[in-house]
Amino acid sequence: MASEPSALDLARALIRCPSVTPQEGGALALMAGVLAEAGFAVERPVFSEPGTPSIENLVARIGEGRCLLLAGHTDVVPPGDEGAWRHGPFAGTVEDGLLYGRGAVDMKGGLACMMAATLDFLRERGPEFGGAIGFLVTGDEEGPAVNGTVKLLEWARARGERFDHCLLGEPTNPGRLGEMIKIGRRGSLSGRITVHGRQGHVAYPHRAENPIPGMLRLAQALLAEPLDGGTAHFDASNLELTTLDVGNPATNVIPALATAVFNVRFNDTWTADSLGAEIRRRLDAAAGGVRFALDIQPSNSPAFLTEPDAFVGLVSDAVEAETGLRPELSTTGGTSDARFIKDACPVIEFGLVGETMHRTDECVAVADLERLTAIYRRVLDAYFPASA
Amino acid sequence: MASEPSALDLARALIRCPSVTPQEGGALALMAGVLAEAGFAVERPVFSEPGTPSIENLVARIGEGRCLLLAGHTDVVPPGDEGAWRHGPFAGTVEDGLLYGRGAVDMKGGLACMMAATLDFLRERGPEFGGAIGFLVTGDEEGPAVNGTVKLLEWARARGERFDHCLLGEPTNPGRLGEMIKIGRRGSLSGRITVHGRQGHVAYPHRAENPIPGMLRLAQALLAEPLDGGTAHFDASNLELTTLDVGNPATNVIPALATAVFNVRFNDTWTADSLGAEIRRRLDAAAGGVRFALDIQPSNSPAFLTEPDAFVGLVSDAVEAETGLRPELSTTGGTSDARFIKDACPVIEFGLVGETMHRTDECVAVADLERLTAIYRRVLDAYFPASA
Repeated sequence: MASEPSALDLARALIRCPSVTPQEGGALALMAGVLAEAGFAVERPVFSEPGTPSIENLVARIGEGRCLLLAGHTDVVPPGDEGAWRHGPFAGTVEDGLLYGRGAVDMKGGLACMMAATLDFLRERGPEFGGAIGFLVTGDEEGPAVNGTVKLLEWARARGERFDHCLLGEPTNPGRLGEMIKIGRRGSLSGRITVHGRQGHVAYPHRAENPIPGMLRLAQALLAEPLDGGTAHFDASNLELTTLDVGNPATNVIPALATAVFNVRFNDTWTADSLGAEIRRRLDAAAGGVRFALDIQPSNSPAFLTEPDAFVGLVSDAVEAETGLRPELSTTGGTSDARFIKDACPVIEFGLVGETMHRTDECVAVADLERLTAIYRRVLDAYFPASA
Repeated sequence: MASEPSALDLARALIRCPSVTPQEGGALALMAGVLAEAGFAVERPVFSEPGTPSIENLVARIGEGRCLLLAGHTDVVPPGDEGAWRHGPFAGTVEDGLLYGRGAVDMKGGLACMMAATLDFLRERGPEFGGAIGFLVTGDEEGPAVNGTVKLLEWARARGERFDHCLLGEPTNPGRLGEMIKIGRRGSLSGRITVHGRQGHVAYPHRAENPIPGMLRLAQALLAEPLDGGTAHFDASNLELTTLDVGNPATNVIPALATAVFNVRFNDTWTADSLGAEIRRRLDAAAGGVRFALDIQPSNSPAFLTEPDAFVGLVSDAVEAETGLRPELSTTGGTSDARFIKDACPVIEFGLVGETMHRTDECVAVADLERLTAIYRRVLDAYFPASA
């Protein structure tokens, strides 16, 4: 039993599975084999939906009672120009203490550490450790996220599975392992504004109606006032105009139409509905005679917060014990599957250093893999005290 | 000598020449034949320039002394979807008193009336009418206007030709023959504004720099204050933003660049240079930290005015005598080749009703062709009084 694979072994093996969404690439099969070998009951449900690719997923469980869920995803974003990589994105090459490859930090590395810590824990404590450990792993986090975590949680609930806390292994540290735990995420809401005018010759503006000045007015109205001043655990909500387009190639023509798209990353001041209503209110108040349409995209990204409690303290203590850093409890950054898991149980996120994620030459320090494994191991020890 | 072709005959014949810029289509050859037959000395210089199509042109002259120049163009804009026309755009069909065809009003109809009036005048007065009549006709008015009127005037000047007044036959009447003489034209100036930002993920706005708010500020600065309040013979100058584009398809990305294009139709308050400087001043004043570039296109469209004088009065009297309307002396609308001719001699414009120009089913009332011919005939009579 002393020959468990290390986090580095597991991370390399996972990187060598080319699991660009929606391809499984062998990554879930590899995890299933490792976990089954360790005594987990493993299920690999496949979910489908018209218009989206079918996706493989994995749920595994060992033990009885209070359950700590370890969650993540094996799919990765495309490598882009493979020739631009220092080492092949699916080679798993180690050089100067760094393991290179797509998914090294986001988040095959995190999953490798979770497995290595769990194998080590089970080796020491055996299957009767006084609780349950679950794995919930999807192949659809970087894609449309339709046939992944959402359906996996539904599927588990329908089978009567329950989880008490979840630790998601996304890369949460901006620059150094130990800096940051994510205890929530901002929500995301997007929409499109269309302003209608009337086309005409630029020399006869009274016969036309230029939609651009109206669009400027509406756009300014969205940006004029902050949406809020932030909350206890969240920065202020932020609205960005991501594009604004007319597409008129003729300098002697007044155009008929202008469109703009915005995205808001919002805190727990808002729901998607209340925020959409505020945006509409601002536009209506500024519109005057401007003829416009507002189309808000359905959002599956609410803002959520896992209140700092004993579980957050337990993970923070584990991080501090290994790294010497007391992690910041943050809600910054993009969205993650935690926004779905929070409906099943309290969820927080801690993983590797995200600096190289989604980039050419994504890589992780081998030392970080070892320390993150040790941190996860401490979490398991503290969550399932030997005295229990 | 009683069998001169009518304006309708000539207009139909010209419409049947498919002279879409830069094609001559037989139109100038037709005019050359008619004018030579009437006793004109006709020249047909062809001008070329690298990067532009070679263009045929026509200069004709009869008589000695004070010279009235009749000017225009035989080229037409493309017909678009020919199947959408009630009658073929190059068929010259008459139905219910209307002559249909591309160029019917812009401006083969006007040229036909000029020729018919001149033939009639010469038939009555003979070649010794006490002055000179010139024709200056280009095939490059609707195109780049590089190998047309500008070079034709240079060519004539180099040969020692001089003109005393010019009547350009562009369609000048908005709705009814007799309403409007153009005694000048506004200038036109276009430019492009580029705002530079820094691309980044929408969840990390502090690491990016969205160029759109800066573009909104600059665009508002251009529109905030009127450029002027108009002058004695001109409306206020008008600036239109003709397009504004970012072209970012991703709602989770803050874009790097925004561009806008503007066009100003300006009055005699400004030269292209002084207006360009004012635009730059406004942008600089509003820019704050916004990184932008302003590219002003070279303009060959200055504002100009032919002061209302005896010649304008003579043409106005001729219009009123035939139509009962005292024409408004206007400087509205787009640009025309009058902006080039004004450097050679005073120029005003009077022609047909422009309502259908550049449209499907461009057409002219046969009665308008007859009345415009009579007006031009009155102009010739008044310009060359029989007593002289």
